[in-house]
Amino acid sequence: MSAARVDGRKADQLRPVTLTRKWSIHPEGSVLVEFGQTKVLCTASVTEGVPRWLRGSGKGWVTAEYAMLPRATNTRGDRESVKGKVGGRTQEISRLIGRALRAVVDTKALGENTIVVDCDVLQADGGTRTAAITGAYVALQDAVTWMRDKKMIKATKEPLAGSVSAVSVGIIDGVPMLDLCYEEDVRAETDMNVVCTADGKFVEVQGTAEGAPFDRAELDALLDLATAGCRELATHQVKSLLS
Amino acid sequence: MSAARVDGRKADQLRPVTLTRKWSIHPEGSVLVEFGQTKVLCTASVTEGVPRWLRGSGKGWVTAEYAMLPRATNTRGDRESVKGKVGGRTQEISRLIGRALRAVVDTKALGENTIVVDCDVLQADGGTRTAAITGAYVALQDAVTWMRDKKMIKATKEPLAGSVSAVSVGIIDGVPMLDLCYEEDVRAETDMNVVCTADGKFVEVQGTAEGAPFDRAELDALLDLATAGCRELATHQVKSLLS
Amino acid sequence: MSAARVDGRKADQLRPVTLTRKWSIHPEGSVLVEFGQTKVLCTASVTEGVPRWLRGSGKGWVTAEYAMLPRATNTRGDRESVKGKVGGRTQEISRLIGRALRAVVDTKALGENTIVVDCDVLQADGGTRTAAITGAYVALQDAVTWMRDKKMIKATKEPLAGSVSAVSVGIIDGVPMLDLCYEEDVRAETDMNVVCTADGKFVEVQGTAEGAPFDRAELDALLDLATAGCRELATHQVKSLLS
Amino acid sequence: MSAARVDGRKADQLRPVTLTRKWSIHPEGSVLVEFGQTKVLCTASVTEGVPRWLRGSGKGWVTAEYAMLPRATNTRGDRESVKGKVGGRTQEISRLIGRALRAVVDTKALGENTIVVDCDVLQADGGTRTAAITGAYVALQDAVTWMRDKKMIKATKEPLAGSVSAVSVGIIDGVPMLDLCYEEDVRAETDMNVVCTADGKFVEVQGTAEGAPFDRAELDALLDLATAGCRELATHQVKSLLS
Amino acid sequence: MSAARVDGRKADQLRPVTLTRKWSIHPEGSVLVEFGQTKVLCTASVTEGVPRWLRGSGKGWVTAEYAMLPRATNTRGDRESVKGKVGGRTQEISRLIGRALRAVVDTKALGENTIVVDCDVLQADGGTRTAAITGAYVALQDAVTWMRDKKMIKATKEPLAGSVSAVSVGIIDGVPMLDLCYEEDVRAETDMNVVCTADGKFVEVQGTAEGAPFDRAELDALLDLATAGCRELATHQVKSLLS
Amino acid sequence: MSAARVDGRKADQLRPVTLTRKWSIHPEGSVLVEFGQTKVLCTASVTEGVPRWLRGSGKGWVTAEYAMLPRATNTRGDRESVKGKVGGRTQEISRLIGRALRAVVDTKALGENTIVVDCDVLQADGGTRTAAITGAYVALQDAVTWMRDKKMIKATKEPLAGSVSAVSVGIIDGVPMLDLCYEEDVRAETDMNVVCTADGKFVEVQGTAEGAPFDRAELDALLDLATAGCRELATHQVKSLLS
Repeated sequence: MSAARVDGRKADQLRPVTLTRKWSIHPEGSVLVEFGQTKVLCTASVTEGVPRWLRGSGKGWVTAEYAMLPRATNTRGDRESVKGKVGGRTQEISRLIGRALRAVVDTKALGENTIVVDCDVLQADGGTRTAAITGAYVALQDAVTWMRDKKMIKATKEPLAGSVSAVSVGIIDGVPMLDLCYEEDVRAETDMNVVCTADGKFVEVQGTAEGAPFDRAELDALLDLATAGCRELATHQVKSLLS
Repeated sequence: MSAARVDGRKADQLRPVTLTRKWSIHPEGSVLVEFGQTKVLCTASVTEGVPRWLRGSGKGWVTAEYAMLPRATNTRGDRESVKGKVGGRTQEISRLIGRALRAVVDTKALGENTIVVDCDVLQADGGTRTAAITGAYVALQDAVTWMRDKKMIKATKEPLAGSVSAVSVGIIDGVPMLDLCYEEDVRAETDMNVVCTADGKFVEVQGTAEGAPFDRAELDALLDLATAGCRELATHQVKSLLS
Repeated sequence: MSAARVDGRKADQLRPVTLTRKWSIHPEGSVLVEFGQTKVLCTASVTEGVPRWLRGSGKGWVTAEYAMLPRATNTRGDRESVKGKVGGRTQEISRLIGRALRAVVDTKALGENTIVVDCDVLQADGGTRTAAITGAYVALQDAVTWMRDKKMIKATKEPLAGSVSAVSVGIIDGVPMLDLCYEEDVRAETDMNVVCTADGKFVEVQGTAEGAPFDRAELDALLDLATAGCRELATHQVKSLLS
Repeated sequence: MSAARVDGRKADQLRPVTLTRKWSIHPEGSVLVEFGQTKVLCTASVTEGVPRWLRGSGKGWVTAEYAMLPRATNTRGDRESVKGKVGGRTQEISRLIGRALRAVVDTKALGENTIVVDCDVLQADGGTRTAAITGAYVALQDAVTWMRDKKMIKATKEPLAGSVSAVSVGIIDGVPMLDLCYEEDVRAETDMNVVCTADGKFVEVQGTAEGAPFDRAELDALLDLATAGCRELATHQVKSLLS
Repeated sequence: MSAARVDGRKADQLRPVTLTRKWSIHPEGSVLVEFGQTKVLCTASVTEGVPRWLRGSGKGWVTAEYAMLPRATNTRGDRESVKGKVGGRTQEISRLIGRALRAVVDTKALGENTIVVDCDVLQADGGTRTAAITGAYVALQDAVTWMRDKKMIKATKEPLAGSVSAVSVGIIDGVPMLDLCYEEDVRAETDMNVVCTADGKFVEVQGTAEGAPFDRAELDALLDLATAGCRELATHQVKSLLS
Repeated sequence: MSAARVDGRKADQLRPVTLTRKWSIHPEGSVLVEFGQTKVLCTASVTEGVPRWLRGSGKGWVTAEYAMLPRATNTRGDRESVKGKVGGRTQEISRLIGRALRAVVDTKALGENTIVVDCDVLQADGGTRTAAITGAYVALQDAVTWMRDKKMIKATKEPLAGSVSAVSVGIIDGVPMLDLCYEEDVRAETDMNVVCTADGKFVEVQGTAEGAPFDRAELDALLDLATAGCRELATHQVKSLLS
């Protein structure tokens, strides 16, 4: 694969990844995640109790909300609070992040507590949802540790069954590429977001033909790239949590 | 594959598929699609002109709206019109149907006209979004024919570059199965919706681990099942359009 | 009365009336009612409990919601869920249907249970509200029977004190006519919807001068037509419930 | 008819009616109408131009908005602005007032101008919608006179084809009564609002069985009472406009 | 100060002030306050109980809602109920009135009861928020007296620690002036609303440079004017309550 | 003044102030402002054209939107986008920031262009609105410079007539203090926000008695403190813009 990328990366290369824990003072878990120029602030908030439909079940709940600052992007977008409703894209990504996190959560071990992970995009340059999932897992882990310290979780229980990270892949000028920046994302014929556990299993696969439909071989190539990318991101997560 | 399914089907068998064209008198295209007990009314409405951001581009627009009658399901759901907002799931499915249809539309050939395809679920028993896409394509084709008759489209142009259909697949008790009904859908460990063209290429692949994450072999098995299922649906579409 | 009607009917003649019970599998009562080309799906949903303001009263509650599919009409209307609010006309008709049904309901006999009757117009050709009331009564009766089978109602109690049906009447070119189709409705100088019990008493009378105000003689002629029409509809309802 | 009414009136007697013109300084027409303790401020606002769907038609538009102050009633109601939506009852009454006024308006003679009549209930004691219609007509007449003075209407044209007033009637303890106050309205078995022109023709008839359905003889008695009541209100309107 | 004012007043002169108590029959306190042509109906509604966050605290709650009739102003404004949201200015003024009233309320003495004071502007000519505060205090006092009569407040407790009134001041053509009418308000370079207790202390000071920023000397002159104006308003309030 | 402050500051001492320009890559002006632990991201977005009511006037428009991330505070707040409406406090602060900025803008010099300054609170510890105004001015200045570089503003015109900054002051335990942090803000008997120009004139003065009303001497002491504080902030702004 010799295609030149706008930022000089190789096709199978991630952008520089930074995970800054404890970025904010208030939340129980707080991570500023950067995938190149994309910056997402992930904060995990713990509250006792669960939504009505889980009361008395002994199970906890983990959910996520994704949003973008109006000028996170190249041109200013209207605030969803001012428009009075949350857009379809925003809800879709919030739901994706929530599902991704819950895939590694043992809600029984969490007890009847709720963790809301807010993923606010401060600056967008492609891959905001995948950066959000990757950072959100780390914030979630910190919130779980905080709960353990506060004796909200029993010592013998481990609410997180593994780690989860996500990356985008796409086909540009016929070449499968990893971790697309905005300029690449716009040009991609096929665009896929893949959420994996640290051991390379799939939590979510979402591929869309932006141009012509794609065939099985292309799909396979993209899945290979994404699996490798997520493995690398899992390493970043571990390092960050150990630091 | 010898797993017994609730309705006696084989693992790789579709439910009975019915496509009833011209179900309603008003729309330019109108199809009642049935996948077993799931019934979706797909109506295609043609209007001259396009949304503001396409004016003067010479291109047309195709979009979709998905909704469910309050008692399409086993327990009554609140009306989204009464709640005052469209839920995240509804928007996500509307967006999916729209993307699936646009994948086979040549918007230049459509001219500056808009087609809205409404997919209203009259009765739900799993697979409402995949039935909707499969029916919506047929309604869209009828609407395009209507436009051609009205000389809204030039004779030499063909706005639909191919057909598109969709099917759900999932893993239940370890067995990959095609076209899940509601009872199966609830039990599936992994759930995937696949949108294909008639020639077996992918337009959209959306797989989610509802329980444990899934591995590459499972993903491959699901994709095989889905591709075959969509090919069969494409045949149903052709037969319906020729009748 | 020799005026020719668009569909060849006599002035005092109903359109063909069809009441298809058990059209859907999920609801406790479900009727597809057709007045000519007008098709309304009426589903009755039973839930235990009543709204807050009736708790502890020993009384039940019956309410209705009316809505129209976007392309039920000749030109597509925007979805009220997308607009984020229910229009005035929709609410007015929902309230009318609810009042009409409650006029024959003994809420004491119903116990603290709620029945919501959804009337969704699948195809509109005039008289959607009157068809809705006529079909809703049958769906309500089926739901009450279901409750009796489930022992939710005591054997000695009869929650429905009688039947209720509705029809539109209007004056077109000076001639009073029964059960207007859309084309007639648009041309009517005076438009009236009348809801009657099977024994010819009035539950609701709503007459509006669309053109010139109408006099007492015209009003009397319209009431005569409507009373006869409702009596005929009551017969259709009985036949349907006995079938 | 010897039934004692709560305020000592005879069955066919209106409450004291007051029409105070020019109650406010800003509106083009402004009337405080009182039916006993019910007080409604009706203001007519003239603007050049018409809604989009009338542009270029040469026709004007008259519409109405009805609302109630939170503490116009015995217990405080939540503000509809705070709830974020206009209730069904409010919209239904707004639509009724608008239709009633338009029944006497020649929109051609109005030219492409719009008059909005706001009817704000300052104090409610039954019959707010009928008082509103009765006052709104006078405010509308004043607004039309203002337009004529400003040369917005040609001298040879008369936009108001007659006057319109409204009154409620009902059956209480078997006795038909005119112009119900709140206490009577609550007890009425049958409740009817009737809108008439000065020459005794009907613009709108809305009767509802609150308790048992009513028969034709009862309906006839109510219509007689209402027609006489409206004739008396028309006299009040003329006197007010001449003063 | 010899500047001629549009209505002939002196710079330090209030407009004619009228406080009409018991204007409405339903509310526990009801005052029509007039500052010249500005007319605001202030009604105080008492309910048992407090918002959720105060339950069990032994404290009561006082809040206010401000709104304007659509044609209270020179040109008609859209209804906030129809727009579906309360504007920023409206909320800001509602919050101001609430704070002003609470500054003189001993919530402990009120017990767990709530008083909502609605301030509805029937006619606007500048100073609507200051008239509203001035009238709202009187309505609040009447509501408290009503509560005492109903034994909702213990005889030994006094929920109102003093009185509160408000007035606007501004600089026009360099001259500080008291109680601006609309025409003056529009022309003012600096605009200030001051809420004072009867003993001349400040509850709220809100000054805004509409044109050039103002200096300390100007600020001092405005505060002097406002303090004197509020003292005069306090006298009006006492007189009204004693009448 | 010897009162010990929670963070050891003197009564007349600001918290550490940081103004980080070009914090984001996309906006025309972008400043991260920190007042101690309070962090607000201020971004200025330039667009050609103005709101409808200014078209053709030759004047530009400057407006602001203030918002807070859900977990900027000690406990998570619900998102206003999810609640579907912008709260009263949020709107009030947005309006304040907009007025403060416009006080130093010559809209004629700006031409028919719009600058929206978004102030998003990333972390809150008191004084978010005053930090926002102080940072917003710097972002605005950078946006104006960007416009000059792009020739959107004529060389001979200067759209900013001066600088503007803001600070909170309050009385705690009887002692007037400058720039309150959250813990102090909660305890303050009187709370005031003051917006000044660099030359010490007032743009906005908003003082509120949270506890007992305050007298003139207290008001004077607070104004002295605030004026000095704003002068110091103006120096920070100049230094930042020169760096």
